[in-house]
Amino acid sequence: MKETIYFATGNQDKLKEARAILKEFNVEQIKVDLPELQGDPEEVASQKAKIAFERVQKPVFVDDTGLAFNALGGMPGIYIKHFLKALGQDGLFRLLHGFDDKTAKAFASVGYCDGINTEVFIGYCDGKIVEKQDAGEGFGFGWDPVFSPDGYEGTFGTIPADIKNSISHRKKALDKFHEFLLGK
Amino acid sequence: MKETIYFATGNQDKLKEARAILKEFNVEQIKVDLPELQGDPEEVASQKAKIAFERVQKPVFVDDTGLAFNALGGMPGIYIKHFLKALGQDGLFRLLHGFDDKTAKAFASVGYCDGINTEVFIGYCDGKIVEKQDAGEGFGFGWDPVFSPDGYEGTFGTIPADIKNSISHRKKALDKFHEFLLGK
Repeated sequence: MKETIYFATGNQDKLKEARAILKEFNVEQIKVDLPELQGDPEEVASQKAKIAFERVQKPVFVDDTGLAFNALGGMPGIYIKHFLKALGQDGLFRLLHGFDDKTAKAFASVGYCDGINTEVFIGYCDGKIVEKQDAGEGFGFGWDPVFSPDGYEGTFGTIPADIKNSISHRKKALDKFHEFLLGK
Repeated sequence: MKETIYFATGNQDKLKEARAILKEFNVEQIKVDLPELQGDPEEVASQKAKIAFERVQKPVFVDDTGLAFNALGGMPGIYIKHFLKALGQDGLFRLLHGFDDKTAKAFASVGYCDGINTEVFIGYCDGKIVEKQDAGEGFGFGWDPVFSPDGYEGTFGTIPADIKNSISHRKKALDKFHEFLLGK
């Protein structure tokens, strides 16, 4: 019988992706009201996973993403969603107006806690911030249209989902987590 | 006998300022390990005050500051300390390079909880983001040298402390809190 691990998320797409990658495991969704913390991505993921474990008392993982602008020393990072809401996609591009370096890292952090281990797995996707390119519905959302991954012409707002999912920061974080689970 | 309220802070200067303003009360310092939360300033102050009350079971207040750039829809706001660390003072000024509007609001939020009431008092100080002006030790710190309050030539990094403290966002938040306490 497959080992069951719990994914604290409200997002069905994330759940589907996690199930596809962690295929030797039975991934169950669980809804936990977790605080949004400030701090570095690794610490935040670790703390969130511990809080999730305290609440559910079962092996559980959490997942967060961020977008680090290299010229801004990694900011907005995990605060990107507040910036996107305040500034819009165009505003994110304009933030770098005063800086030559337009490179950025999309990152995902998976925090896992089973009461014995607390582990964090971070996946990165290098790219740059560009003027908005959006192919519309069915393509990326959020800040995807202003992030162009290295090696591609378009943005996560124009690259088809199957390609995006094969190179994404989340894929890389989940791959690392998968390896950890297999070797546990 | 004066009513005692507790100030969850590790900062002696803040404690001194709070005691000077809340003079009809006995303000005691208390050290509580509080999470740094993401969210809007009002919510964050309210949640932090509630968490502080849960831990100390005494009337307690917390205090936070932020710096909202109007061109950035209020960002970095409460995340300013992470931006300052990542970018330095000069970098904060450069962030607005792509935007004509250099105005900003410094704000302080005082969150109070006594188990019955949870209240938040926000004080603002309007001004603008300018190139760094710093008079050195004994003057402002943090982002003070790039924030010039309306009606003054210099920045919080060059304006003497007694003047700064008489017009500051924290002063205004504490004044509101004081009024609330007196009318309780």
